[in-house]
Amino acid sequence: MALIVQKYGGTSVGTTARIKRVAKRIVETRKKGNEVVVVVSAMGKTTDKLIELAKKITPNPKGRELDMLMATGEQASSALLAMAIHDLGEEAISLTGPQVGILTDSAHTKAKILKVNTKRIWEELRKGNIVIVAGFQGADYQNNITTLGRGGSDTTAVALAAALKADICEIYTDVEGVYTADPRIVPEARKIDVITYEEMLELAGAGAKVLQSRAVEFASKYNVKIHVKSSFSKKEGTVVMKEVKSMEDVLVRGVALSKNQAKISIDGVPDVPGTAAKIFTALAKENINIDLIVQGAPDAEGKSEITFTVSRDEADKAVEIIEKVREELGAKRVTCDKEVAKVSIVGVGMRTHPGVAARMFSALAKENINIELISTSEILISCLVREKEGEKAVKILHKEFELEKE
Amino acid sequence: MALIVQKYGGTSVGTTARIKRVAKRIVETRKKGNEVVVVVSAMGKTTDKLIELAKKITPNPKGRELDMLMATGEQASSALLAMAIHDLGEEAISLTGPQVGILTDSAHTKAKILKVNTKRIWEELRKGNIVIVAGFQGADYQNNITTLGRGGSDTTAVALAAALKADICEIYTDVEGVYTADPRIVPEARKIDVITYEEMLELAGAGAKVLQSRAVEFASKYNVKIHVKSSFSKKEGTVVMKEVKSMEDVLVRGVALSKNQAKISIDGVPDVPGTAAKIFTALAKENINIDLIVQGAPDAEGKSEITFTVSRDEADKAVEIIEKVREELGAKRVTCDKEVAKVSIVGVGMRTHPGVAARMFSALAKENINIELISTSEILISCLVREKEGEKAVKILHKEFELEKE
Repeated sequence: MALIVQKYGGTSVGTTARIKRVAKRIVETRKKGNEVVVVVSAMGKTTDKLIELAKKITPNPKGRELDMLMATGEQASSALLAMAIHDLGEEAISLTGPQVGILTDSAHTKAKILKVNTKRIWEELRKGNIVIVAGFQGADYQNNITTLGRGGSDTTAVALAAALKADICEIYTDVEGVYTADPRIVPEARKIDVITYEEMLELAGAGAKVLQSRAVEFASKYNVKIHVKSSFSKKEGTVVMKEVKSMEDVLVRGVALSKNQAKISIDGVPDVPGTAAKIFTALAKENINIDLIVQGAPDAEGKSEITFTVSRDEADKAVEIIEKVREELGAKRVTCDKEVAKVSIVGVGMRTHPGVAARMFSALAKENINIELISTSEILISCLVREKEGEKAVKILHKEFELEKE
Repeated sequence: MALIVQKYGGTSVGTTARIKRVAKRIVETRKKGNEVVVVVSAMGKTTDKLIELAKKITPNPKGRELDMLMATGEQASSALLAMAIHDLGEEAISLTGPQVGILTDSAHTKAKILKVNTKRIWEELRKGNIVIVAGFQGADYQNNITTLGRGGSDTTAVALAAALKADICEIYTDVEGVYTADPRIVPEARKIDVITYEEMLELAGAGAKVLQSRAVEFASKYNVKIHVKSSFSKKEGTVVMKEVKSMEDVLVRGVALSKNQAKISIDGVPDVPGTAAKIFTALAKENINIDLIVQGAPDAEGKSEITFTVSRDEADKAVEIIEKVREELGAKRVTCDKEVAKVSIVGVGMRTHPGVAARMFSALAKENINIELISTSEILISCLVREKEGEKAVKILHKEFELEKE
């Protein structure tokens, strides 16, 4: 008997008919003798619709109230899923994030999980229940409802799997696994059978939307094996796990594209210590995540340019914040370019095979694609390019590293 | 400075535009220097829609999961209302029933409030917040979400007013107050300015849908003054309060009609002690509320007939339960008549003015309306009649007791 955590995304539970189908799959897993904990997202586009409703009331709803509102989506789907399981003759109980005891910080709309209390879940499992947990949500110390940000249900699932020491965490989604590239861009893209946490993390950060980064971080930290599968088929998906030696044989695991990028530059920044700290502290205070950062060498007047990227939907807010800091710093000008995209290649093999970056830059150069910013980690190389050239860049790199081949 | 509890029903917050209007009224109350706690129902027909959704999953959803599902309606509207208040520049915070600390029993879908913890509300009031509480819901000892049954938001409001020792509990609804009869049936019906808890209670039980009975009971027990008003006008409504001497001058305060009635009869019940107890214990166990009860005198064979009424939507369930008890009792037959209605007159004046019942029966008889069952209390007389004659009976009685006159 295994303890299995399953997570079903919004598309998988988008209609009552789909909820019933998901219930069947859960009951099958239970009947094989497993203990099952299920994490469920809100039905279909519920979260978007709730946000739309809030925007009809006020253009800038407070995070606390938005969380209160959004959390109803998963609460409803978890109750409906429990009902569908009852209808199949199995015992089940739904629990909200606060009921489970998912304690988070108070960063509303993007809260982080601090602790998971498993007492209630164990009690319900012992009673013979399949436990359905509303994903994406928790409560802070003051018992205010919080949400974990987009894709937060993945994090809920992995956090529960870690806390319960589950045998596996199955993430059901509308795709069949993680691919070497987005198949809509590269039709030859292959499904990846096994990928390391690090690679998955870099791919997610680079724009692959299959799993939320925070969920993978959590999985890596607590060594939770994730199996990404389609909820519409029975095929094996992609296993995300700890690196094993043989995985280094592959040079590049996948190529990712992120269009949701904006490049912000601050011109004429006096080259004195603490400048960068001031800028990025101001952004961090408002919970804005920075991706790439480049600081140029100072010019003759001792002024330099600082450029960084943020997700496009936070660009306006970031510019607003930076404008305030600019005056204080005595910098010249803030500019924002939203027509950029980030293309990245990822693979643990890079660590042991040099020259990957050079191959990447050459391949892009050969096709006249200009690289505006570069960022690298041990297993990732990202390039910022014009947005309209992003998809072409992905195709070039997928071919260059022969990812279509087994 | 007063502490005011306001409750807004589903129609009052049926659209985002209406939520904004309600927010304005709340802010006006606050700006007059009052502390304000608001209880809100789900938007419009949300609760019905959620139940519909559940029925698409399974014909008999379990109460616990139904509560989990239904409670999302008020959670959403309370968050939206808080946002609308923020948009007007005032501080507000929304709280779910469980967050407030509304402790109930575990009778899902019709839970009773056991205790109200006011700690969190006082904290928020002290911070200068208008506190918006999701009506209709609470949590049991195991922290399962419960709901209080139809109209439960009224009960939430009164329970909070009692626990907070509020100066008044204003119930905003889509009518202008309590009327001497339903104005759709009797166009001459007058708005009642002041009514006692007992009268209101009997009227509610008799079918007047303005306030939920449990809310009035609560108000009576803790002496909470209720002001029923329209959320669409600024007119004075109806005050529900403790009886004062002058209120006895009115013989009949109002006439009510309840169509949601079913009459169940058990034939050939052996006339031995404990029979009625067995029947009504079986029904009570399943939480079915009985209204009128009549037991006939035993016939020559020592058998008698027991007749009682239940709300029509519980009739089938009641018959099912009684069928099981019937065999055990050795009774002959169970019949159910759903084409009945209950017409009632209510007034504290009855206590001091005899002959009211006789006048009621005569008036109905004169118009050939047959009375099938009678039930009386100190301040109420109810008659069960054919459903199709119900409205006519109301008109006759309104006229007989001259309720159209001041």
